Amino acid sequence: MTKDFLVQQIREKKSYLCVGLDTDLTLIPKHLQHLPNAIVTFNKAIIDATKDYCVSYKINTAFYESLGIKGWEAMEETLHYIPNTHFKIADAKRGDIGNTSLRYAKTFFETLPFDAVTVAPYMGEDSIRPFLEYENKFTIVLGLTSNKGANDFELLKTGDTFLYEKVLSTVATWGTPNNLMFVAGATQASEFKNIRSIIPDYFMLIPGVGFQGGSLSEVSKNAMNKEVGILVNASRAIIYAGSNDLYAEDAKLIAMEYQTEMSSYLV
Amino acid sequence: MTKDFLVQQIREKKSYLCVGLDTDLTLIPKHLQHLPNAIVTFNKAIIDATKDYCVSYKINTAFYESLGIKGWEAMEETLHYIPNTHFKIADAKRGDIGNTSLRYAKTFFETLPFDAVTVAPYMGEDSIRPFLEYENKFTIVLGLTSNKGANDFELLKTGDTFLYEKVLSTVATWGTPNNLMFVAGATQASEFKNIRSIIPDYFMLIPGVGFQGGSLSEVSKNAMNKEVGILVNASRAIIYAGSNDLYAEDAKLIAMEYQTEMSSYLV
Repeated sequence: MTKDFLVQQIREKKSYLCVGLDTDLTLIPKHLQHLPNAIVTFNKAIIDATKDYCVSYKINTAFYESLGIKGWEAMEETLHYIPNTHFKIADAKRGDIGNTSLRYAKTFFETLPFDAVTVAPYMGEDSIRPFLEYENKFTIVLGLTSNKGANDFELLKTGDTFLYEKVLSTVATWGTPNNLMFVAGATQASEFKNIRSIIPDYFMLIPGVGFQGGSLSEVSKNAMNKEVGILVNASRAIIYAGSNDLYAEDAKLIAMEYQTEMSSYLV
Repeated sequence: MTKDFLVQQIREKKSYLCVGLDTDLTLIPKHLQHLPNAIVTFNKAIIDATKDYCVSYKINTAFYESLGIKGWEAMEETLHYIPNTHFKIADAKRGDIGNTSLRYAKTFFETLPFDAVTVAPYMGEDSIRPFLEYENKFTIVLGLTSNKGANDFELLKTGDTFLYEKVLSTVATWGTPNNLMFVAGATQASEFKNIRSIIPDYFMLIPGVGFQGGSLSEVSKNAMNKEVGILVNASRAIIYAGSNDLYAEDAKLIAMEYQTEMSSYLV
């Protein structure tokens, strides 16, 4: 997918919502849990219910890998079910020496037809470059994350700047807004203006709106750019909105709420 | 596996060699490439040939993931073939918010019976804690890596120390030598004395001896502690030592060379 197509989808749907498919067999409705294909059945219903209100789906690979081969099969089947109008993110947090990152890029951009993959920056340029070589694919590098542990290293000072600021400004020189985005955590809404000033033209993937806290209004106000430039993710708040037969309907209602609020921030 | 058992194996075999199974279908001998189970056939032959000279195998997950489900099947079959006397490392470089790291820990410590998994530190304490909860399992956190990209962030100054030094000293307080190790890259041999002084009691997993450069003699001299405290990995230098019918025999010879040299550094 190209950035222009993504922006067009956002404008048409008046939504920059990404739905996170962090699907856990023990958290889906009880009446589905016994099905042989429970996770895929659940995911398909969630996708059907929410696709009109979101522009992206994010598959958290850990939830699928933890089930072994059956999990990878479920991930594949889910991925192929997502409409091609939607930006498909593998939330995989990969990154290794160049020779190995090359294989991770192949995993998520060739073997699995994702549009984007999240990548950890610790190992530096040659760990990120192989992902950037793919045309119309996006590498989403961790900048500031929304968890408590962000304080341990991301918010260390390196000279005059925080480590995460240095990561943003450095990695931004390795790609363009057409192949690179950044993860920017939503619990530090006050930081968004600053982040936007460091990476004015890049899309941000913003997790942490929903059960992790964070205000959609503040995030939108401070992080948007002229191409919208943000995808806001909600996972548990949407997919586990309901716990009985009406789970898909409940997920739809929450996704609609997000979309309605988002439409009011889009000019 | 416990640390004591690992140390005992090292003493008995006079080897601290880890063989990296970075198996690439296009690099294994031509006469195997057409087999339906080529990677597993190759890996089993390599394991049979090298197991007397090494104490550990490291499976680089990227090489298997990039083949999709067939790759995960090959990883599983390879893993189950490794003798239980050998320390089994998933070189996966995982790490995410706690709720997600929990699933990665489950992937590599329950679904797949690895003894250890490599983890990236960028996201801080709650991204690492879930791995440390497992008894007799090891979290191997990236400290200093052996690639050029280490200069981008790992070697940034944070106050008086490099970022990687801060990672070592901070993460060391979250675990013990019985559940935590560190990756320490072998191309910066001069740094090993310093690293050892920061983490005197922890095992280091040292990649980069072999095709990535690095001197086994220098590494051993500077990085060992009283419990040996190092695992030195070689991947391509061993598994691709030969390219014809004798590939396993050639791998054995190189593994033997490593073991012979290592035995001379063990007192």
